[in-house]
Amino acid sequence: MNILITSGGTSEKIDRVRSITNHSTGQLGKVIAETFLNKGDQVTLVTTSKAVRPLLHPNLTTVEIENVSELHEKLEPLVHSHDVLIHTMAVSDYTPIYMTGFDEVSASSDLTEFLNKSNSESKISSQDDVQVLFLKKTPKIISLVKKWNPKIRLIGFKLLVDVSKEKLLETARASLKKNQADIIVANDLSEITEQGHEAYLVGNDKVTQAHSKLEIAQLLYQHIHREEKT
Amino acid sequence: MNILITSGGTSEKIDRVRSITNHSTGQLGKVIAETFLNKGDQVTLVTTSKAVRPLLHPNLTTVEIENVSELHEKLEPLVHSHDVLIHTMAVSDYTPIYMTGFDEVSASSDLTEFLNKSNSESKISSQDDVQVLFLKKTPKIISLVKKWNPKIRLIGFKLLVDVSKEKLLETARASLKKNQADIIVANDLSEITEQGHEAYLVGNDKVTQAHSKLEIAQLLYQHIHREEKT
Repeated sequence: MNILITSGGTSEKIDRVRSITNHSTGQLGKVIAETFLNKGDQVTLVTTSKAVRPLLHPNLTTVEIENVSELHEKLEPLVHSHDVLIHTMAVSDYTPIYMTGFDEVSASSDLTEFLNKSNSESKISSQDDVQVLFLKKTPKIISLVKKWNPKIRLIGFKLLVDVSKEKLLETARASLKKNQADIIVANDLSEITEQGHEAYLVGNDKVTQAHSKLEIAQLLYQHIHREEKT
Repeated sequence: MNILITSGGTSEKIDRVRSITNHSTGQLGKVIAETFLNKGDQVTLVTTSKAVRPLLHPNLTTVEIENVSELHEKLEPLVHSHDVLIHTMAVSDYTPIYMTGFDEVSASSDLTEFLNKSNSESKISSQDDVQVLFLKKTPKIISLVKKWNPKIRLIGFKLLVDVSKEKLLETARASLKKNQADIIVANDLSEITEQGHEAYLVGNDKVTQAHSKLEIAQLLYQHIHREEKT
């Protein structure tokens, strides 16, 4: 099978020296990629420069992106040509529009004026004691996947921080439905350590629990290949 | 001699999943550290998790920090116990105070109210189409160095983007004076490539040009050890 995996976290530039980055080591995507590769699948990995990479493998192709706009552009054709997308990447929700000093913002009678501005400087000056950064929502890539290719099987991920199990499962179920995913892997940052990675694989009719990255990878492998046989 | 070197770029957290990061590979600090180590000096390197590291060496001690606050705390005692500080680290100018939806900010009659708020959420919600992030200036670490230890010799760095040589030298001279540095190494991001690294070593009475990271390191080594002999 042709498996498309995303890993790492995107970065959105504020200027040429600063970015807003979503943290993600890429470790989970690496383990999932290696699991599918070692069992004979073809894997295309879309990842970032900072993310850890899987061991080299003849059936592995790697594509590097930095921000949501590049992800959008590079992922769309790949979604058309793959059977499964496992979307572990931490994708930025917002991207910078304009940054300026507090006084300029405070003096404005209509803040919407800043939403059409953009910084022309390559490195935004740092004179003001307080600065204000306006950010806009990025397109939700996961919601586009089934529109691009209704036949692709989609595995999504939902990372929350310090929430109850109920809240985690409820959020995962909403995402499952909204994005027409096979499974949403729901996890809480406070339950991810060097030793373990607690996760719930939330499907339409069942929830399976995993305790490590390798177990998540193996359960996803079984899910994808079991369904293939029936 | 005891040489203190900083490298990499600091990251300031917005919440537990997002940060604002200053880009810096750590490559220049690595080359400088290796140059001093190979000639017999003791080196303490203060760096970040993402920065590239020098080759292991018995005279190398490494200290890891993430943000400006940690840098401040860890650097002060080290400045007291070293002869020279070579401060290549890209230090964040601003750190997040509070992030909220555009509508809340737009409806406020006094924006200063947001400067005393802080986000209680571990992961800030992403419902609004536009969000507004308030940031405050961080302490200028380089300006504290000579206050901490008037005897330390300070080498600073100034990175600008797409400016004239005149502007670059003028900015470096202002920093040299303000921070009582021996040398400010002035460089322009647009003149740093995989092949070369153009830089001006701006001292009180002369300017020396370098064309690579190794040349910057060697010139700094000569400067530090020549002055020692006289």
